[in-house]
Amino acid sequence: MEVSLNTVTVREKWGLADCIEGCARHGITGISPWRDVLQAMGVNAAAKHIRDAGLTVTGLCRGGMFPAADAAGRAAAIEDNRRAIAEAHAIGAACLVMVCGGLPPGSKDLSGARAMVRDGLHAIMAEARAAGVTIALEPLHPMTCADRSVLSTLAQGLDLCDELGAGTGIALDVYHVWWDPELARQVARAAGRIAGFHVCDWKVPTTDTVFDRGLPGEGVIDIPAIRAMVEAQGYAGYAEVEILSRHWWAQDPDDVLREITTRHLTSI
Amino acid sequence: MEVSLNTVTVREKWGLADCIEGCARHGITGISPWRDVLQAMGVNAAAKHIRDAGLTVTGLCRGGMFPAADAAGRAAAIEDNRRAIAEAHAIGAACLVMVCGGLPPGSKDLSGARAMVRDGLHAIMAEARAAGVTIALEPLHPMTCADRSVLSTLAQGLDLCDELGAGTGIALDVYHVWWDPELARQVARAAGRIAGFHVCDWKVPTTDTVFDRGLPGEGVIDIPAIRAMVEAQGYAGYAEVEILSRHWWAQDPDDVLREITTRHLTSI
Repeated sequence: MEVSLNTVTVREKWGLADCIEGCARHGITGISPWRDVLQAMGVNAAAKHIRDAGLTVTGLCRGGMFPAADAAGRAAAIEDNRRAIAEAHAIGAACLVMVCGGLPPGSKDLSGARAMVRDGLHAIMAEARAAGVTIALEPLHPMTCADRSVLSTLAQGLDLCDELGAGTGIALDVYHVWWDPELARQVARAAGRIAGFHVCDWKVPTTDTVFDRGLPGEGVIDIPAIRAMVEAQGYAGYAEVEILSRHWWAQDPDDVLREITTRHLTSI
Repeated sequence: MEVSLNTVTVREKWGLADCIEGCARHGITGISPWRDVLQAMGVNAAAKHIRDAGLTVTGLCRGGMFPAADAAGRAAAIEDNRRAIAEAHAIGAACLVMVCGGLPPGSKDLSGARAMVRDGLHAIMAEARAAGVTIALEPLHPMTCADRSVLSTLAQGLDLCDELGAGTGIALDVYHVWWDPELARQVARAAGRIAGFHVCDWKVPTTDTVFDRGLPGEGVIDIPAIRAMVEAQGYAGYAEVEILSRHWWAQDPDDVLREITTRHLTSI
């Protein structure tokens, strides 16, 4: 399994051009840009740069964020997702990763927020299918339920895939699902629908609910075991390294990429 | 639904005697001590104090913490749970709350840790049944999986209850389960087995994975909706207020109890 660099891993010091050059320097053959660095370069220029570098685009991060306090907000989110689909198509991304969104500000209506996610996804599926962009639903850790994703488990994500039909899949990030008692059963259910495989690690202690992820091997997740599970279901794509970490953001990005390629051999 | 004071809510400033007197001052009729304050007073003296004050003991916190790196550690945990059962019996607690334990230090073997929890529970059930102490399995939020509880969901807890049989139940803490897409279905499944109902709130943002809980109404959990779910399944016990919070620990405990009794009317 080859590794792909998710650009958020070095977001504080590198733009997209730096990431593309960094991948070449370190022998990394895949990349997954976030939309901010993509737009900073310009989507068409970015598409050409990435293509010229011979990189596989394992995903575009991210669509989603559907729930909003009013109808105008929800419509704006859907429009933004349409732009994201076009961007994913332009760069030949294997999928558009969906971070579905949390509760609207001030709301305690979790069922309502989940309905907004469902409605938002239904609204964009025709466009995604027409563009050939796989919508990769990413269940996020339950600790992000209030503010980032009311989609919390693989079971819930696969239920949504069942409902939405062709053109959907799962972005499976070990950080978000490692704890799940249903993990093995749901990965088996995901056969043929794993659109992305993201790796990082759960540190003990974890000092921030968003920005304290570890590099593979720094924490307690048995990443090779989960990799074996997804490979057993036919997943033949990349392991995308996506590290949101104040600690690693403060380091020299070349050191971070060196760590990744070293740890790739032992901890993924 | 009456409220019960879990002593951890004021642990930094009050011992058990203070808590008992505080409950009387604020018209709180239930208490759930942690073992440290219980042992500090002496179990028999505490039992008499609580009885004399006319308080209902909604639980003893906590048993569990079964996983350990070696057999001696696991045996010691089981012995400690036997002492906890005796203490729960002595104070007439409605249940012994189980925080089952995380991964042993250095381990990535989640299945192994879960097996240790299962084995530990099997080892104490005969003693618990003989003492008439209900073993209340508390699923803890998945963000505590590594270091506090590999028991993460209601479904998993109820599967364990099914396996262990009579004398078991669930301690349902809204903080740990509010996000769960399975919540309604699993609460229905828990009918007749809800041994405790704990309330606090999920703040946005949450700045610590253990010590940043909110009082009811401070966060995004629809506590009255979850209360209605458990009442619909026949739960007729207390709402136990259990707040682990550096913020609230720094306040005057009488102010905290005043907040609790006020919020009881609006947010539970």
